Amino acid sequence: MKAVIFNKGLKVVRDHPIPVPADGEALLRVRLAGICATDLEITKGYMDFAGVLGHEFVATVAECATEPELIGRRVTGEINIGCNECRWCKTGLANHCPNRAVLGILNKDGAMAEYLTLPIKNLHIIPDSVSDEEAALSEPLAAAFQITKEHDITPTSSVCVLGGGRLGAMAALAINETNCKLIVCGRNAEKNKIINGFGIKTTLPKDLEGRFDYVIECTGSPDGLNHAIRLTKPKGTIVLKTTVAAPTALNLSDIVINELKISGSRCGPFKSALDFLDKYSIGYADRHERLSSLISAVYPLEDAALAFDKAGSKGAMKILLQVETIS
Amino acid sequence: MKAVIFNKGLKVVRDHPIPVPADGEALLRVRLAGICATDLEITKGYMDFAGVLGHEFVATVAECATEPELIGRRVTGEINIGCNECRWCKTGLANHCPNRAVLGILNKDGAMAEYLTLPIKNLHIIPDSVSDEEAALSEPLAAAFQITKEHDITPTSSVCVLGGGRLGAMAALAINETNCKLIVCGRNAEKNKIINGFGIKTTLPKDLEGRFDYVIECTGSPDGLNHAIRLTKPKGTIVLKTTVAAPTALNLSDIVINELKISGSRCGPFKSALDFLDKYSIGYADRHERLSSLISAVYPLEDAALAFDKAGSKGAMKILLQVETIS
Repeated sequence: MKAVIFNKGLKVVRDHPIPVPADGEALLRVRLAGICATDLEITKGYMDFAGVLGHEFVATVAECATEPELIGRRVTGEINIGCNECRWCKTGLANHCPNRAVLGILNKDGAMAEYLTLPIKNLHIIPDSVSDEEAALSEPLAAAFQITKEHDITPTSSVCVLGGGRLGAMAALAINETNCKLIVCGRNAEKNKIINGFGIKTTLPKDLEGRFDYVIECTGSPDGLNHAIRLTKPKGTIVLKTTVAAPTALNLSDIVINELKISGSRCGPFKSALDFLDKYSIGYADRHERLSSLISAVYPLEDAALAFDKAGSKGAMKILLQVETIS
Repeated sequence: MKAVIFNKGLKVVRDHPIPVPADGEALLRVRLAGICATDLEITKGYMDFAGVLGHEFVATVAECATEPELIGRRVTGEINIGCNECRWCKTGLANHCPNRAVLGILNKDGAMAEYLTLPIKNLHIIPDSVSDEEAALSEPLAAAFQITKEHDITPTSSVCVLGGGRLGAMAALAINETNCKLIVCGRNAEKNKIINGFGIKTTLPKDLEGRFDYVIECTGSPDGLNHAIRLTKPKGTIVLKTTVAAPTALNLSDIVINELKISGSRCGPFKSALDFLDKYSIGYADRHERLSSLISAVYPLEDAALAFDKAGSKGAMKILLQVETIS
């Protein structure tokens, strides 16, 4: 099958073996795969990953021995695959299983291919109202909903999302559901306009004023946390979303003096993301146009190199790879 | 009066003016003052402070216009002096008042002198059962009780206090009150023995095994947080106590991947500290000997330079300065 492989360099191959589902897994035919900042970091050496890239996807169930009624259903899925044996897996925290595989990131071929395999219990059926392109946002949007799941953000909370890119836009959509006092601080005026399209205030960094109860660090930059520390009120909380491989020089004493809390946040609830996409903006006739503004371009899988370049460029929101129908 | 002044260099002067209490303040005659890591950092330029050093003290109330019944009482006191006007002060969080002074640290002459002034509401009367030397531990011990005030450490929690010095020993005493699974990791075998004297387990870093629900970072070293990150279980909490002026190179992606929480912690409840000192080890005949093991030496105020050198040396626990009786 066709697949986007990373092994020190990025290449598209046509002869990658179709994966064979293990016990409890389904074989999925990929429709769309998203490119995320983590994929870009992997191509710089992060995680030492080699194999098929991609952990954001929409697919159709092709084979499913134990639950054949799933065959033909449109799904997306959770990316952590636990051992099922350890105390993390047994308490629903497979994403912290020490022996886990992670789709397209750690010891498991990913979704930028014609097929992938994933445990059936990782799958989420996509509601009919949600388009393929919208559903391709499920994984990063789920990660954004982890913020509101873990923190009691209320209508009186002041919140700054730092970074107006893919991650920042997703965080803003999830947090905006709390009706808090929200502003997104992004450097790119065009991306800020896209976020404004969802009724969310934005600002350029030079115009940002005040300090916030919560700062959501989504800059993707090693220096983002230092900026977040300066923007957070005493006793306030920074949610750290950026994963960068490079070490960051931090002024720790400000964290102690202002008694800040820093909370690392990774994956999140797919159900919240799919519910959001299903119900988003009931009453807005332009719902699909709004959500599609978050997607800058869709490339054929063959053009992965081009698509990765685009995803790494300044103006890009989400870039998707389309797997063409196999005849 | 005699005073230990820092102004680029450290010196003891004899002609510093006796401070005049402002409205609502008492004049206190100092009996003992403690040297803390923050004082050592200040002498390296931290906080750009110039003036009388010292924020840990035991004193006798000498003048108190509005509450004369306090005159002659033995007191210690909270070190943050708020503006009384802002929302921080009005919600009991004067230690985050943006216009605050901090005794011996920020815009307020400190306690390494014959006299200091402090708002009456900052004062805590020392129980008769507590000796001067023990009471001199109140401020750092209060800061340690902030950890158990802010975090729900239970008997099933595994906790590692990283650092077996002054700060680590105080943190261990406070946390040990929760009956959790506690170990202190200290590099100095002699200091570890002192901590063992309180019935608390210790280990050298090379023998430390496992990962913990809570890691309390008390190393006083810029690299301590990186070690703490490696020692903390996924979803676990690091309490950051060390204030160092130097920036620290951190691997942020581990915080995100393991969804760690980092919580900066500064000052704490004096009442908890004084209650602990009052009630410590009921049933132990050697209570005073145990607590005094935390104090390495008491120097006359005149020998402050020597005392600071000692406080900065490897084997030292708490070093106190004694203000001799004025005849």
